[in-house]
Formats: sequence, structure tokens, C-alpha cells
Amino acid sequence: MTPKNILYAQSGGPTPVINATACGVIQAAKSAGFLGVYAALNGIYGVLHENLVDVLKESETNIEYLKHTPGAAFGSCRYKLPSLEEDTAPYERILQVMKAHDIGYFFYNGGGDSHDTIHKISTYCQHNNYPLTCIGLPKTIDNDLAITDNSPGFGSVAKYIATTTQEISLDLASMALTSTKVFILEVMGRHAGWIAASSALGKNTPTHAPHILLLPEVAFLAAVKESVDSVGYCFICASEGIRHDDGRLVSETGDTDAFGHHQLGGLAPKLAHLIKEKLDYKYHWAVSDYCQRAASHAASLTDVTQAYALGETAVKQALSGLNDVMLTIQRTSSNPYAWTIGTASLGDVANREICIPNDMIKPNGFEVTDACLDYLRPFIQGEVSLPYKNGLPVYARLNCKPISKKLSPYDGRQ
Amino acid sequence: MTPKNILYAQSGGPTPVINATACGVIQAAKSAGFLGVYAALNGIYGVLHENLVDVLKESETNIEYLKHTPGAAFGSCRYKLPSLEEDTAPYERILQVMKAHDIGYFFYNGGGDSHDTIHKISTYCQHNNYPLTCIGLPKTIDNDLAITDNSPGFGSVAKYIATTTQEISLDLASMALTSTKVFILEVMGRHAGWIAASSALGKNTPTHAPHILLLPEVAFLAAVKESVDSVGYCFICASEGIRHDDGRLVSETGDTDAFGHHQLGGLAPKLAHLIKEKLDYKYHWAVSDYCQRAASHAASLTDVTQAYALGETAVKQALSGLNDVMLTIQRTSSNPYAWTIGTASLGDVANREICIPNDMIKPNGFEVTDACLDYLRPFIQGEVSLPYKNGLPVYARLNCKPISKKLSPYDGRQ
Repeated sequence: MTPKNILYAQSGGPTPVINATACGVIQAAKSAGFLGVYAALNGIYGVLHENLVDVLKESETNIEYLKHTPGAAFGSCRYKLPSLEEDTAPYERILQVMKAHDIGYFFYNGGGDSHDTIHKISTYCQHNNYPLTCIGLPKTIDNDLAITDNSPGFGSVAKYIATTTQEISLDLASMALTSTKVFILEVMGRHAGWIAASSALGKNTPTHAPHILLLPEVAFLAAVKESVDSVGYCFICASEGIRHDDGRLVSETGDTDAFGHHQLGGLAPKLAHLIKEKLDYKYHWAVSDYCQRAASHAASLTDVTQAYALGETAVKQALSGLNDVMLTIQRTSSNPYAWTIGTASLGDVANREICIPNDMIKPNGFEVTDACLDYLRPFIQGEVSLPYKNGLPVYARLNCKPISKKLSPYDGRQ
Repeated sequence: MTPKNILYAQSGGPTPVINATACGVIQAAKSAGFLGVYAALNGIYGVLHENLVDVLKESETNIEYLKHTPGAAFGSCRYKLPSLEEDTAPYERILQVMKAHDIGYFFYNGGGDSHDTIHKISTYCQHNNYPLTCIGLPKTIDNDLAITDNSPGFGSVAKYIATTTQEISLDLASMALTSTKVFILEVMGRHAGWIAASSALGKNTPTHAPHILLLPEVAFLAAVKESVDSVGYCFICASEGIRHDDGRLVSETGDTDAFGHHQLGGLAPKLAHLIKEKLDYKYHWAVSDYCQRAASHAASLTDVTQAYALGETAVKQALSGLNDVMLTIQRTSSNPYAWTIGTASLGDVANREICIPNDMIKPNGFEVTDACLDYLRPFIQGEVSLPYKNGLPVYARLNCKPISKKLSPYDGRQ
């Protein structure tokens, strides 16, 4: 068997397990006997600039260590391609790079924007009769991708946030009598509240934290006072994506990225000042930001397993003729939890955000239903075991040996 | 043997291992055959209000689980006693509570302020010929206590911050080409930079994170630009205690606690806005706040071991006649690291803050020396293994069975 070469690339914000998917792709590609297994550095940007590296030159230990290495080991990007109607030049360049390196299989690991990108590339290559198998591999901590039951990355962040919530609430309970009464934990998730909802996974009684989930923006000060009056303190888990009545994001900074998405962050201190001003409680707040999405030391074993399986399956299915799809996680049973890998057409996944449905949020707006927690709970099961040296985790440190360029430099136009 | 009873209490901000010290005291007290082993709820506040609980009524599993339970399991407090010259009434009340419950040994687990408190109590009881053995047990994540080589709690926070720094830096490196170039991690530590310094424990080459430690406030924007120019990105670990030239804390909120300490926090967004305004780099920031000091899931085994040993030793030494001291960690060897437990007189420890000495900070002001890292490294060695259920750690959930009160309610005056 002499298959064409494989190209793998990573896109969008890293997750604690995006490299586990890379590991799955690479180990399956090696098993299948591919002679060329390449990765593009910094996603589609690296394809355009022909910045490819030879993955077969990495040590087996380094590849195995990808399973617990945070960040995106081959570099990621936020880079928006124009539509095919606007400008075909970048697509022509991508096609040239694929041809120059005899790429037959392109695996793109990313969120909704990335599946839009790979869908456009697939369409362009088909129109130009270049046989490129394009498979999208889902990843996002926000868990907002369509069709798939969940997205790798989310389970580990849910586990980290649920654990941190329990830890902080014990700290807060210790101090509340004479000191801090309100704690606000700001979490990511953009316009979807899934990460905030996962804060409640350790809540076994009504008095346990979190006392308030800020999913949509509602008048929450009365709920804060009620919690402090009844429990003695109040733990608030606030999603960065909550909005004012007029639709503006509370945490909007005014900056936007390449896709026009607003940069979020900084909600917690705004809420804290409001609580101090209106209720005069002593508060503390934390913004978990990259801490949560890089926390491979606290990853969910279920999440790592699914992320790896997606990468491994992508190679096997591509060899069986699957093309122009994103792989999904399909839940086949909730109790006990069981799952399999399915497919979704790229066009159905791209640019859609799946938020928490209204019937999973309690009428008060500050809590999620048992059905929501039942949906979330399987994703945080199981703990990882990491190699440690000198008290710190040992990560993959890839060599990223460059593949010789065969084309002229990319000038952004051809 | 019919010793008098033991009273244990916790004070100040919790650490990931303050309950390991409680576990040491309790298990040693049970071994020694004490018939009354009590804990005061919420530190000295609980002593004044006679809120005592019977520790011997807790299950052995619950006591053992204290080793990995965050928060202060018996409640903590920020509560300042007046000086003996100002008002002896609270001390008279404390003496009455000690007498009423036949307390012969008082173990107070706290930071600098707490050792001031226990020193005053010890002095008052001695003047009134009540034989109360008073032993202070150090705990603070800030590592700023005098005489002891380190304080339990610090090692685990150092491990958490060093791990988080490595994790986030891999995330940041992934994104820097087309997105975030600067990351700011705000850490605790008050006026001492030890926690910020520990961010550098995983820095193996000059290009590794952290690129800038903000210990004192210095003009740092040029250093940010230099890092982005040379490495591609910049990871800043900023201590909450940095100051303006005029001595004001940059992160001061205007609020103070019972000891007159300023509430700190919120430095990271201020620095981020400055970087955006002056250098126009895309940034992200996190404020770790209680996340770091409650992170028992990521605790240092060395830290847990020392915290437990302090509690255990306190009971043994008290029975041997030791009194009016704080137990310390004494380093007997650096390579290999070896330690033993020593003592310091309470008066020498109270109200002193040990900051990073100037000769452990490099001339540029943004890095610590190898000598500083050599001092810090032993504290983060070893990992803990926690019981998990349903994907989350299982903590001690104490019953806290109240001891019947024998005195009239505390009215704040007698």
C-alpha cells in the first residue's frame, strides 16, 4: 500500500487534550504505514506558508507524551480565509502546497470556524479535481459545536472548574464568618454557558457551591443577598458571555479577533464592585482564563480517551473512503455512559454555536437542572496519571523538523 | 496518664495543607491517649464564644481525609484581639473558657497575626498562673514567616503556580503568531514575592516562561516588548503586592481587614490595559486568587508531609514540656534536601514579614537568581494521590459535634 501523505494541523484556542487527538492521528498513521506524516505549524497559516514538519522524526516517547501536553503542540492560529466568492487565491495556494507534498489526507483539528475553513478547502479541491480527503476533528472547551454530543476539551475544563469550585467553596466557608462572604469565579465559554454549568457538578445539597450560576444576565443581587443570609456566603460562577439587556456583552473589551469575535474577560471585577457597592460584602474573585483550558495536570480521562480516539479513527476512516466530514461523539447510552464516533457533514457544523437549551436552566435563571448535570457528568469521569520530574509535569517537547519547501514564498496573494 | 484536654484552632487564610496539620495534631493526640481533643470553630472567635467541637467523635476516615481537604475544616477567622494594655476583658474570657473545659494545651495554626494572638494569650495565662501550654503552628501560602525555613502551604501553592505557568506558556506559545502575545498571571503573596518567584521553577532556558516576574514595581513595558520581539510572546507573573513609586499598592482596592491590611487583587487587568495602550499587543490575563490556595488536588507531597509532621510534633513536644513557641521547619541540608522541626519564640515570629532578599533578585528586577530557585525547589517535590468519586475529589466532611457550653454567652466584654 502506498497511500498519499497525511497532513495534520491545529486551529483556534488550545484545549487540555487537543494534543491527545494529534497523538491519535500520528500513532494510527504510523500503524497504517504512511511514509509521509506531516503537521503544519500554526494551522492553515502554516499550510499557506508551506511551514510543514516531519512528524515521523519525533521520538515515540514525545508522541506518547502529547496525550498530557497542554497547548497546541504544532502551534495554532486565528486566521480567517476569505470566502470562495471573495477571493480564490489562498485556496489555489493551499492546493499547490497539497500537490507539492503529495498530501492525500488533511485532518484539521478545531472549532466551528475551523470546520468552515476545511469545508471551503474541500469544496475548492473537489472543484479542481484534486483528490484530497478532508476530515474535521472537533475540539473546543466551549462545548458549543453542533451535532456532536460533546467536544473534546470540554470534559477536562468541566472537571477543572467543578474541582476548583469545590475547593474554593471550602476555603470560602472557612472565612465567611469574619471575612469574605462572596466569591466570583469567572469562566470561559463565550456565548454558551456549558463551562459555567459544570461548576455545579459537585453540588450535592442546595447549600453547596455554586449558589449562583450567571448564565444570562439577570438581576442577581437579590440572589446574592439571599445566599449570604441563608448559607453565610455565596459562590458565583459567572460565564464570560453574559449580556446586558441591550445585548452588549458585560465583559466586552472593545477588541475583536480575525473572525470579528469580541475579546472577552474581566467580568468578575465588574460584578465584585457592584456587589461591594450595593450590598457591602467583602468579596474575592478569580479569573481562570487560560488556567482552565491549559490544565492538563487535572484533565478528565474520559476527555483524553475521546480526543485520542477521534484522531485514531480519523486515519482509519479516511483510509476507508470517508471524506468532507467532521467526526462527532455520539452518545449511545447515558446510564451507563457509552459513546461511539459518528460523522457530520462539515457544512452542518461550521459557524453554529450550541448553547444551553432553556429547559436545562431552572426558572430562577441561576441554576441548571438535573437533566443538564446528567448530561455533563460523564465528561469529567476518570483521572490522568502524568510523568513528573523535579515536582513538575514532563511534557512533550517536539523537535518539529521542517520539511523542505518546494514552492516560492507565500506573498499573501498567489 | 490523665493529661488535661487539647484545644486546636485555625486562623487566617486557609492553605491547601492547613488541614494536614490538623490531622497531625488529632492523630497524635489520639495516640497519646488524650480524653478530650477539641477544636474551636473559626479560631479565636470560637474560643471567645465557647464554640468547641469534639474531634474524637469524627470517623478515622474523615480525620485521614483532612490531609487532602482544602479550606480550614474547623473554620478560620480574621479577628484581632486588643493589646493587653488596651483591654484585658477578652483574655479573661479566653481564660475562663480554657478553665471551664480543662484545656491544658492550646495549638493555634496560623500566620504572623495568629502568633501574635497566641503569644498574648500565653502571656496572660502565665500572669494569672493558669498552666496553659501554647504552641503556634505555622501556615501561610505567602512564605513570609520569620525564623522557619518555609511555611506549610507555600510549597503546594508554589507547585500549583509553577505548573500553571508551564501549562499556560504552552498555550500562549501556540497562539502567539496570530493572536495573544502577552499573558499576565496575578498571584497572591501580599508584600512578599515568594509565590511570584516560584513561577520560575519550571524555567529551563531563557526563552521559557515566565519572561517577567513583577516583584517590585519597575518600568516593565520595555521588558515586555523585548520578550515579544525575541521570543514571540511574553508571560508575566505579577505579585499582587507590587507598589507605585510613592509606596501605594498598585492593586489596592481601598478596603482593609480587621488587622488594617489592605485587600489586594485586580492588578492583572490594570497591567493588561497599560500594555494594550502603550504596546497594542493582544493580551490575556488570569487572577488565580483562592484557586491557588485551595488547590489541594495539585498539592506538593513535601508540603503535606511537613504540615502533618508539625501537627504531630506539636502534641509530642507539648507533652515533653515545650511551651510558648512556634514550631519551625529547619533546613539541615539543601542537596539532598533534608529538614527537621525546630522552635522559635512566639514574640520573635509575630508580626514580621520576610520578603525575598535583594540578592535573590537579578539586577534587571524581573528575574530571580539560581540561589532563589535552589531555595524554592525542594518545596514542590512529590505528588499527592486523592480519592475520587464521580470524577471529583472526596473531601473530609466533618460532623463538628458541639461540646456543651459551660459559660454564659459571650457579650463581647467579659
